Amino acid sequence: MFHYFDHNATTPVCKEVLEALPELAKAWGNPSSIHWGGRQPKNILRDARKAVAEAVGAGSPLEIVFTSGGSEANNTVIKGLFDYYQTAQFLTPEQRLRTHYMCSAVEHPAVIKAMEHIQALGARVDFIPVNRRGEIDLDFYQAHLSEETALVSVMFANNETGTLFPIKQMAEMAHKKGALFHTDAVQGFGKVPVNLQDLGVDFASFSGHKFYSIKGSGFLYSRKGSNFSSLINGGGQERHRRGGTENTLGIGCLGVVAKRVGLIAEKAEALAKLRDHMEARILSEIPDVTVTAGETPRLPNTSSLVVKGADGETMLMSLDIKGYAVSTGAACSSGNPEPSPVLLAMGLSREEAQNSLRISLGWETTAEEVNGFIEALKVVVARLRSLNNNEGDSCHV
Amino acid sequence: MFHYFDHNATTPVCKEVLEALPELAKAWGNPSSIHWGGRQPKNILRDARKAVAEAVGAGSPLEIVFTSGGSEANNTVIKGLFDYYQTAQFLTPEQRLRTHYMCSAVEHPAVIKAMEHIQALGARVDFIPVNRRGEIDLDFYQAHLSEETALVSVMFANNETGTLFPIKQMAEMAHKKGALFHTDAVQGFGKVPVNLQDLGVDFASFSGHKFYSIKGSGFLYSRKGSNFSSLINGGGQERHRRGGTENTLGIGCLGVVAKRVGLIAEKAEALAKLRDHMEARILSEIPDVTVTAGETPRLPNTSSLVVKGADGETMLMSLDIKGYAVSTGAACSSGNPEPSPVLLAMGLSREEAQNSLRISLGWETTAEEVNGFIEALKVVVARLRSLNNNEGDSCHV
Repeated sequence: MFHYFDHNATTPVCKEVLEALPELAKAWGNPSSIHWGGRQPKNILRDARKAVAEAVGAGSPLEIVFTSGGSEANNTVIKGLFDYYQTAQFLTPEQRLRTHYMCSAVEHPAVIKAMEHIQALGARVDFIPVNRRGEIDLDFYQAHLSEETALVSVMFANNETGTLFPIKQMAEMAHKKGALFHTDAVQGFGKVPVNLQDLGVDFASFSGHKFYSIKGSGFLYSRKGSNFSSLINGGGQERHRRGGTENTLGIGCLGVVAKRVGLIAEKAEALAKLRDHMEARILSEIPDVTVTAGETPRLPNTSSLVVKGADGETMLMSLDIKGYAVSTGAACSSGNPEPSPVLLAMGLSREEAQNSLRISLGWETTAEEVNGFIEALKVVVARLRSLNNNEGDSCHV
Repeated sequence: MFHYFDHNATTPVCKEVLEALPELAKAWGNPSSIHWGGRQPKNILRDARKAVAEAVGAGSPLEIVFTSGGSEANNTVIKGLFDYYQTAQFLTPEQRLRTHYMCSAVEHPAVIKAMEHIQALGARVDFIPVNRRGEIDLDFYQAHLSEETALVSVMFANNETGTLFPIKQMAEMAHKKGALFHTDAVQGFGKVPVNLQDLGVDFASFSGHKFYSIKGSGFLYSRKGSNFSSLINGGGQERHRRGGTENTLGIGCLGVVAKRVGLIAEKAEALAKLRDHMEARILSEIPDVTVTAGETPRLPNTSSLVVKGADGETMLMSLDIKGYAVSTGAACSSGNPEPSPVLLAMGLSREEAQNSLRISLGWETTAEEVNGFIEALKVVVARLRSLNNNEGDSCHV
């Protein structure tokens, strides 16, 4: 039996999407065609854009730019804004001074690497520290914000610990200095309600496959009046913000899952109960386990554990044999023997980071599965610890 | 009844892909996961990469970088190479001098706009002229190629006229000056056999939905040793050449269509016969029609007509009412009242460009459909011409 506890890496495709796929695939026309072939795909785009805009509390469907996923959306904002300030013809003298960028030290690689990239091109970039409780350093943030800041990018929720950041407050602080604010909301969409107008951000990134849709689709929210250079130039699609024939299949599926957001609040409550039950049992039944950033507001489905004396990757593989899918960190860096940069940035020791395990529950996870997982984890941890102790003994011989 | 004559805009999703979709969608794991969830998707990626590499005659599956489509692939090469020469740490003095770029004047907007974009960032860009016969100006090309040329980008086949360009010869000429060569092969893949090793190009772009697969997927061929900055930074996917969770559904479907390339040679022959039959009938039965670039080697499925005295968009809409889907130019610029920039660049007059119609046949097009289309076109053209003549008369009154 297979039990999936890695919903922050990706989610199963939901039945609603699976059912919609064949019909969406049959609407194969090019949405830009003005003959009959373009009509049905054009309707799919329009409906999905409206559903998605409503799902995230955008002000208008025109603020949605469909992309190939969250990474593209993140790169578009960061590189696109930097590029815009380099090439746009009509900038105010004040805009031309904006060469400073900020993001948290625990962003997804798509943000960190894009920031490092514009740094190589001449931008000044600061990474805002996050402590081991998962709290972002607002004093550092305030001290570094200035009239030269072009963009601040802070994730809605961290993918490894689930920590929720004070986006609304941080966006307000940025706006006071005239800077734009972006949030990578990939881990928020589908796990907790997200209302962009309430958050007051200028840009936000979303990914379909983190919310029970197919891979290869996502979107960028770009508040009315927020300009950027497009990452992909082309035939003028997405109102000249993203070239390339629209992925009607992926976009249609986004529309399908967007209509499920009404369920989120209730599901989030159930998930938090299940996660809290799981953590309580683990902490009481397995000695020397800590929950990283456990006291700070978190996503309801995520649990990042440090299990003293047990290597994360070995736990992962032992649990895999028993059918339980968990993670040591972001899936995209798997195979990488280095411990999680996110946990290290939070101030965990190398050993703590290496002994970490991420468990992320989903809408279909049952209490029975969770209890089965705990039993499996107990066995795995006990075995690894006893092996380590024996190894330790033999060293002394 | 609906008859589709616009296969250069997009193609119907083939039955093989429709059949594969449900199973591919069920392999929803993240290919980067090292637990059981990652195994099936990882296999899908590996198999598709191999099939695609074989289909286009790449030297190795590792030379394939999956993208969200042709536009992303084009932007990746052009912007990515310009960026690489700006940011890479270990460049030879000779590489640092390479700030010159070239493409044909009739490239797809994804290439033209990307070139214009790097021009705004400081690159020197030349657009190689193409005459009204569709022939590219090799003298201009040779004269402008130099030791400063970083990249030349010339499409395998033009999307509007179907003209085939002498890629192998042009790539050799570029290499003599140490420049890299890219071909946008979006319109080639699936219409005629493409062998990249034989062509000797360094980069090539491909799109799935132009060859009977779903939208939102494509790939870039990057010959071993050809470096570029990735357009989308992220978690290190595609060997650090393209970040973002892999679109396993779209990639799997690319694998499915890649296995159909064995049919291309035969289909191409049949299509050429059908297209030639269509053109012969139109030229003999409708007066004052010319085939643009008809004497130059072309894709077997494409026909670009100038119909004197008949507006292209009006013909398109009149044919649409009769169920025939055709185009006036690239679908992505539809709704744009300007005549085709490609035809204008070739030296057609504004009026000729405005009186143009693109007909592009596909694997399922039948002789019966073609004959029906000709009858419909005859009626439409006669009506438009008679209306124009009456209008002309009334002007003289």
